[in-house]
Amino acid sequence: MSTSQTNTPIFIGVDLGGTRSKAALVGAAGELIHEAIIEAEEPGSELMRANMIETLRALIADERAANRVSAIGIGVPGLVNRKTNRIELLPNQPELSQVDFATEVEKETGLPVILDNDANAAAYGELQAGAARGHKDVFFVYLGPGIGAGLIINGQIYRGAEGFAGEFGHMTIDPEGIECACGNIGCLETIASGPNIVRRTRERLYRDRTSSLSRLALPRDREFTAEDIARAAREGDEMAQVMMERTGMFLGIALAAVINLLNVEMVVMGGGVMEAGDLILKPTIKETRRRAFPPSFGSCEVVIAELGHSAGLVGAALLARDHIAK
Amino acid sequence: MSTSQTNTPIFIGVDLGGTRSKAALVGAAGELIHEAIIEAEEPGSELMRANMIETLRALIADERAANRVSAIGIGVPGLVNRKTNRIELLPNQPELSQVDFATEVEKETGLPVILDNDANAAAYGELQAGAARGHKDVFFVYLGPGIGAGLIINGQIYRGAEGFAGEFGHMTIDPEGIECACGNIGCLETIASGPNIVRRTRERLYRDRTSSLSRLALPRDREFTAEDIARAAREGDEMAQVMMERTGMFLGIALAAVINLLNVEMVVMGGGVMEAGDLILKPTIKETRRRAFPPSFGSCEVVIAELGHSAGLVGAALLARDHIAK
Repeated sequence: MSTSQTNTPIFIGVDLGGTRSKAALVGAAGELIHEAIIEAEEPGSELMRANMIETLRALIADERAANRVSAIGIGVPGLVNRKTNRIELLPNQPELSQVDFATEVEKETGLPVILDNDANAAAYGELQAGAARGHKDVFFVYLGPGIGAGLIINGQIYRGAEGFAGEFGHMTIDPEGIECACGNIGCLETIASGPNIVRRTRERLYRDRTSSLSRLALPRDREFTAEDIARAAREGDEMAQVMMERTGMFLGIALAAVINLLNVEMVVMGGGVMEAGDLILKPTIKETRRRAFPPSFGSCEVVIAELGHSAGLVGAALLARDHIAK
Repeated sequence: MSTSQTNTPIFIGVDLGGTRSKAALVGAAGELIHEAIIEAEEPGSELMRANMIETLRALIADERAANRVSAIGIGVPGLVNRKTNRIELLPNQPELSQVDFATEVEKETGLPVILDNDANAAAYGELQAGAARGHKDVFFVYLGPGIGAGLIINGQIYRGAEGFAGEFGHMTIDPEGIECACGNIGCLETIASGPNIVRRTRERLYRDRTSSLSRLALPRDREFTAEDIARAAREGDEMAQVMMERTGMFLGIALAAVINLLNVEMVVMGGGVMEAGDLILKPTIKETRRRAFPPSFGSCEVVIAELGHSAGLVGAALLARDHIAK
């Protein structure tokens, strides 16, 4: 190992999930060194937090880290108040907004800890080490269990007045649509999040049960996920392709609004649904082009994320890197 | 006149309209000193441009300016490319995007000229000398013949990659709605711009012509404007009040999306329609509250603009002030 490597700091990125979180050692240039999984039966519980601390300590002590871990960044699937470095709203793990989670982790690990929204972290990962390298004004969309977004303005994460910016999934697409967990109705998330793509596909499979549109790649009698639908689309299942196309259309309505409003240079789309590749990207771009101002659309590239599942880990680690460099 | 006054530079702000433009002498602190009107039979024509140059020269030579005019800022109701300082898209006056209008005015007046979108200029006016003084992250909405918006991020106008940011009026509110001049369908502008409020009111007056909802404040047999509807609402006309309420509801759908996305501290609403005051502000806030994330709504004030019709003039002048100070 060369001297420069020995002196280069390493960071830990954490992607806080529900029953499954991830933590990783990440190099200063965004390279993933080693990844660990943290399982939790009760998300947010003391036991989960103890498991996480244990995993973090193991990573810090790991020989691949070689005593070089300098800071920890944690991406959280909810609202983070950056002024207080506390979780403001985490619907599925309310316990974590009642404690000072960052300080708890700092005490137990002896390292500086920063929290950020997980979509912000993933956006930062794509900016620093993924599809958006070298860009300044970027909108990152994450299509997963929910829909998250991170907004990069002038090369920095834009967080807004209190740190809550980026709630793209709750843009109203259908004013008379169905109820969303957030209290609004007709949110983009009620149509295009993973579970809602599954719901819409199930409804359609039920309605069209006499049709031959789905060549059984999507079983009526078993559970499937949005990723399964994306895969089935890629494998030629027509029903799955129609669902990806319709989903892309709704995404395009929302993205056109963002492109008109923000005139970003690039939209990066990540998350499991994007495994469908062009089958969802193309209809998304088609609808975006139809609805956005031509000059604004013309100055914006819409691409698929590069870092996949590790965008959040890498981004959280690099946010920690840049936080301690200040 | 004191020495300090004598030395303080003065700026000209221009609010480029269609048949009617305005130009004004504006002090360095945003005070309106003197205003002039520029009428044009053919918007964008050479004659209009000649009239404008004449008016600008008269303002520069005006004794109230006392040889202190230092720069000219022009707010334009279309897309401005700030890199080239040219008008990119001005649907109603295409001539002006074919010429280098700023350089033309610079040559004829001998002063530096900057162009910006008129809603950006008005947003900057409200930020520097109006309702948003002292704020950092502000969304300014202008409800007029079209719907414009200016986005202030970290105390600066955010223009996006090419300067086209802020096209709030073309956010899709009704995916199956009516055609918009921009090519999209169901844009906010097709519902809540001045002419569209008039259109919706006329349709309703026609449909409900046997009802007594409108106490004749809005004549069926004469032309009226959105400002007339706003005034009629204030004077107690129920039909006009219903129209303001419905308009506020649609605005709230769109504003909730912006507040979720950007977590701004303040939304400032200007333009003739806002003369209805609380009759449009309250339903707007009500719908915004219903649809936005509670923490994001809770950290945002929604207020009516303070500078009225002069926001654009003042803002354009202050943009010119800050441009030459760089």
